[in-house]
Amino acid sequence: MLEMEQGSVQAHGRNRKLSRIWVIKNECVRMVLAETLSTYVMMVFGLGSVAQVVTGRGAFGEYLSINLGFGLGVAMGVHIGGRVSGAHMNSAVSFTMCLFGRLCWRVLPLYILSQLIGSFLAAGTIYSLYYNAICHYCGGNLTVSGPKATAAIFATYPAPYLSLHAGFLDQLFGTAMLLLCLMALSDQRNQPTPSGGEPIAVGLLVLLIGVSLGGNSGYAINPSRDLGPRVFTAIAGWGPEVFRAGNGWWWVPVLAPLVGGVTGAAVYKVFVELHHTSPRDQRMGLEDETEKEAAPLEKQKSLRPEVCV
Amino acid sequence: MLEMEQGSVQAHGRNRKLSRIWVIKNECVRMVLAETLSTYVMMVFGLGSVAQVVTGRGAFGEYLSINLGFGLGVAMGVHIGGRVSGAHMNSAVSFTMCLFGRLCWRVLPLYILSQLIGSFLAAGTIYSLYYNAICHYCGGNLTVSGPKATAAIFATYPAPYLSLHAGFLDQLFGTAMLLLCLMALSDQRNQPTPSGGEPIAVGLLVLLIGVSLGGNSGYAINPSRDLGPRVFTAIAGWGPEVFRAGNGWWWVPVLAPLVGGVTGAAVYKVFVELHHTSPRDQRMGLEDETEKEAAPLEKQKSLRPEVCV
Amino acid sequence: MLEMEQGSVQAHGRNRKLSRIWVIKNECVRMVLAETLSTYVMMVFGLGSVAQVVTGRGAFGEYLSINLGFGLGVAMGVHIGGRVSGAHMNSAVSFTMCLFGRLCWRVLPLYILSQLIGSFLAAGTIYSLYYNAICHYCGGNLTVSGPKATAAIFATYPAPYLSLHAGFLDQLFGTAMLLLCLMALSDQRNQPTPSGGEPIAVGLLVLLIGVSLGGNSGYAINPSRDLGPRVFTAIAGWGPEVFRAGNGWWWVPVLAPLVGGVTGAAVYKVFVELHHTSPRDQRMGLEDETEKEAAPLEKQKSLRPEVCV
Amino acid sequence: MLEMEQGSVQAHGRNRKLSRIWVIKNECVRMVLAETLSTYVMMVFGLGSVAQVVTGRGAFGEYLSINLGFGLGVAMGVHIGGRVSGAHMNSAVSFTMCLFGRLCWRVLPLYILSQLIGSFLAAGTIYSLYYNAICHYCGGNLTVSGPKATAAIFATYPAPYLSLHAGFLDQLFGTAMLLLCLMALSDQRNQPTPSGGEPIAVGLLVLLIGVSLGGNSGYAINPSRDLGPRVFTAIAGWGPEVFRAGNGWWWVPVLAPLVGGVTGAAVYKVFVELHHTSPRDQRMGLEDETEKEAAPLEKQKSLRPEVCV
Repeated sequence: MLEMEQGSVQAHGRNRKLSRIWVIKNECVRMVLAETLSTYVMMVFGLGSVAQVVTGRGAFGEYLSINLGFGLGVAMGVHIGGRVSGAHMNSAVSFTMCLFGRLCWRVLPLYILSQLIGSFLAAGTIYSLYYNAICHYCGGNLTVSGPKATAAIFATYPAPYLSLHAGFLDQLFGTAMLLLCLMALSDQRNQPTPSGGEPIAVGLLVLLIGVSLGGNSGYAINPSRDLGPRVFTAIAGWGPEVFRAGNGWWWVPVLAPLVGGVTGAAVYKVFVELHHTSPRDQRMGLEDETEKEAAPLEKQKSLRPEVCV
Repeated sequence: MLEMEQGSVQAHGRNRKLSRIWVIKNECVRMVLAETLSTYVMMVFGLGSVAQVVTGRGAFGEYLSINLGFGLGVAMGVHIGGRVSGAHMNSAVSFTMCLFGRLCWRVLPLYILSQLIGSFLAAGTIYSLYYNAICHYCGGNLTVSGPKATAAIFATYPAPYLSLHAGFLDQLFGTAMLLLCLMALSDQRNQPTPSGGEPIAVGLLVLLIGVSLGGNSGYAINPSRDLGPRVFTAIAGWGPEVFRAGNGWWWVPVLAPLVGGVTGAAVYKVFVELHHTSPRDQRMGLEDETEKEAAPLEKQKSLRPEVCV
Repeated sequence: MLEMEQGSVQAHGRNRKLSRIWVIKNECVRMVLAETLSTYVMMVFGLGSVAQVVTGRGAFGEYLSINLGFGLGVAMGVHIGGRVSGAHMNSAVSFTMCLFGRLCWRVLPLYILSQLIGSFLAAGTIYSLYYNAICHYCGGNLTVSGPKATAAIFATYPAPYLSLHAGFLDQLFGTAMLLLCLMALSDQRNQPTPSGGEPIAVGLLVLLIGVSLGGNSGYAINPSRDLGPRVFTAIAGWGPEVFRAGNGWWWVPVLAPLVGGVTGAAVYKVFVELHHTSPRDQRMGLEDETEKEAAPLEKQKSLRPEVCV
Repeated sequence: MLEMEQGSVQAHGRNRKLSRIWVIKNECVRMVLAETLSTYVMMVFGLGSVAQVVTGRGAFGEYLSINLGFGLGVAMGVHIGGRVSGAHMNSAVSFTMCLFGRLCWRVLPLYILSQLIGSFLAAGTIYSLYYNAICHYCGGNLTVSGPKATAAIFATYPAPYLSLHAGFLDQLFGTAMLLLCLMALSDQRNQPTPSGGEPIAVGLLVLLIGVSLGGNSGYAINPSRDLGPRVFTAIAGWGPEVFRAGNGWWWVPVLAPLVGGVTGAAVYKVFVELHHTSPRDQRMGLEDETEKEAAPLEKQKSLRPEVCV
């Protein structure tokens, strides 16, 4: 299953002519393609696991399956876009990166758009794949609430007892934990994830958030993950009720994660990162020389803020 | 448990005479042996987990156990055949490799045959091991459908509500996701799985597909996994009904994965791989010099297309 | 999601002025901040998973989710404080380190205090986040025992059949297994966890203890994990009953782990570590030269006993 | 939690005097201690998980918890005895190693004895820890069969429908798969587990066997794991019935794994290992020079056959 890479060295020459026509050199387009595909893959696996558990009435998985679906889905997404776009797959992550000067504001709209398109297409794909199953489950009656509700396969809805205020806090806090831990996972002067282990580490983090902070409203912690599929369901048959349900819940997983992400990243900076004593630049320099090939967090230079005009 | 390797260096001399008689130098035979054994092991673990869950009526595992059985089974299969045959264990993978010029067309029939033999033998093994349990479960009446159906332990069958057309799409899409992610896992210019971590990464990918894309028809996504055991059940007592069930379902997991695998790999190429800017050959060359020993994806030179005559 | 580190090299210069005001150079304060934050994060994930399972009546997870919540929570905690404070997150670990001469007694009170503050704050956070859910579950009546008891979301309580004596043994033994295995995981002359894999290895160890030694009283195995949240519940509405319940159980998970931790570490030393033949210092020296950058267990020099005055 | 190793370098000098009295230089004694402790730890976690699931009536775990308990328990055992005794923890593994010339026959009795003592003591420990729980579960009536049977917490018993002949095959085959995969995991000329990842890889293998080959008789696949606890239960109150139950089942998990282990290892040799073309000794030599420190499978030279007299 794994000899793909080797073979393609040989095939490279042969395909060079064909490739030259297709190769995209514009970094923004490359980034858009990678971010769209990684978000799409993550969302297909995530939404697919919800669809499988809901329509199977528990026979084909349980709540833990959904945690695994989103967690490992994120890991695969990082494998797909990791070194091209960074594979944020989450507008709250992109926004926080911009605010902390690690991504150019200029490309933020492209990231958000790519993520929305990716998650919208993923919702469409899961809808098509599980169309028979959804119809069989709910008798063809697509509802947002009630015992046979199916809208929650695609977007998140709060538990009935959750006030909007508490829901906002829930989403804000969940995203804060995500960004706080992401900062630690990539802090090379602390105890980061080993080189090459980033995808699975980020995946386990998302699984963990699903296991502990998903009880109130299904851990969207991601505007892109929630809004794209919600728009899809509005179009595909569930109607405008998807925006009215939960006392107009839809804007909470869009706005709260943006605030939460920045908060979480700031908390890590204030509690840990700012106070590292080991000289970072020097250390980084050392690594650049000795382990350049293995550097795990390579990214497009032109998307970094110092290249912004 | 782990000192095997070291000791055998010393035992090497002693066994040399014996070994010289047994050693097979023909690469095709070696490949056939490794591919058969790795498919066999993967299928024994996979089918075993289904048999255990079905005949145990849930007391000895649940749906997640099946996901783990196939996922970790694939990981063990990669450990067994990884550097000898590549451990495809899946005709759709082998076919895609050929089409993308990474495997010689000449050996494709051998791969497919090895995989079918491996999965057929695994079905026979699980049938023997769980014979008492299956008889106890179904009262000795081997049926393909109904409340005590046992044919689904071996081959996949669609959910009753699934149209053949939707089932074809289901299998096509599942295999596309498999190949798309496999391409990313092994793309050394992106965020690949770290060296040595390939087996577990591929295993988690298969687990993930089972968790999210298995609700409709049990994620065969592999002609070899499905056809071998189905033929076995036809012979072993379930009769020709295994080919008639599900509106003649049997050909779907044989044909759809071939189309899906190529599609998924192509999507990854078009969205990501073609546009890498870092010079691949140069980088590969660098790695060849500095890390030759650690190269994870080594394979038989003679099976690569450039050696085809 | 992972390009944070790289970007911040560039942002470093820009933020330098701001940083100089905030940077804390006192190592004890840095340690307190890191230990507090890592305990907080670990406990938020751990308690969150209990709250989610209990208030969701099993719809949002099962007992395994709690094992995952604490296990992966510990892993994230190690990522957050690993190289700053060592991320003990457990007074029994800190105490054992001091007794074995690997941590300065002088800083032990700071460690314990940080851990208690972290777990107290985490209990408060989970209480706020799941306040609606807890009220909905128990009808607003916060009880320590009975069918709708919710105090066990925060602190541990023994099974009704457990005698206090057996409970003490249970906590002592669980913590002994924790420290015994931690010693092995970090013993560089044996089969330690690979460099960079410490967080996940420690996390899996805690998961394992939860899976096998949690049946009697919920595996506190950690005074800090238990006492902080118990004090919080006493204040937040459950009242002094949290200290009276289980025949005055509260002191058992405070005292027994201290005895158990030392016992477990001593058993590993007596059975394995003392008898290593390979010269440790020499080996360590070698590693210091060749792999200094990768040394996984770096810690504050000034917190080590030889720096004690 | 992880700074143990570093600190102990400094503490080394201070403790040297004390240590000199305790240090055991006899390799056989060291091996016995390490093998006993690693088997003990593995069995405590394994049996503990069964006790927790059985006595908790499913509230504190499910069948997957038992798979995790034995799987991760094996991983911890490998961490504890890995480089001292090899951490077989299984007489079938030790026996196979001897037969394939990788362990000295002279030490086999010591390995078996250590493993039996370790598993016997682990059964005693779990009995003590879960004594209250077991009594509460079965009303103080320790039975081998029936609805409240508790003997199966410690040793394995076949499903009622399983013939002795089929049970022998079940145990033989399960152990064959164990050894077959262990051979692959440590075959440095194939796709082995990466250096340092052995414990978790072996643990996942045991988990996998539990998930797929445990339905008939509970996957003992290990004479030491089964016989020690069975003897304990015979003494501790379940009486001689533990040897009569299952039509005299007790000898099956003692004898069948010995045959199975050798078969499985031989199959891997015949299908894969014998035919490797890359020169093993040369490659090994290369690694010895460049990566000596990282060699994962180091073991006592004097226990290897060439040192046998």
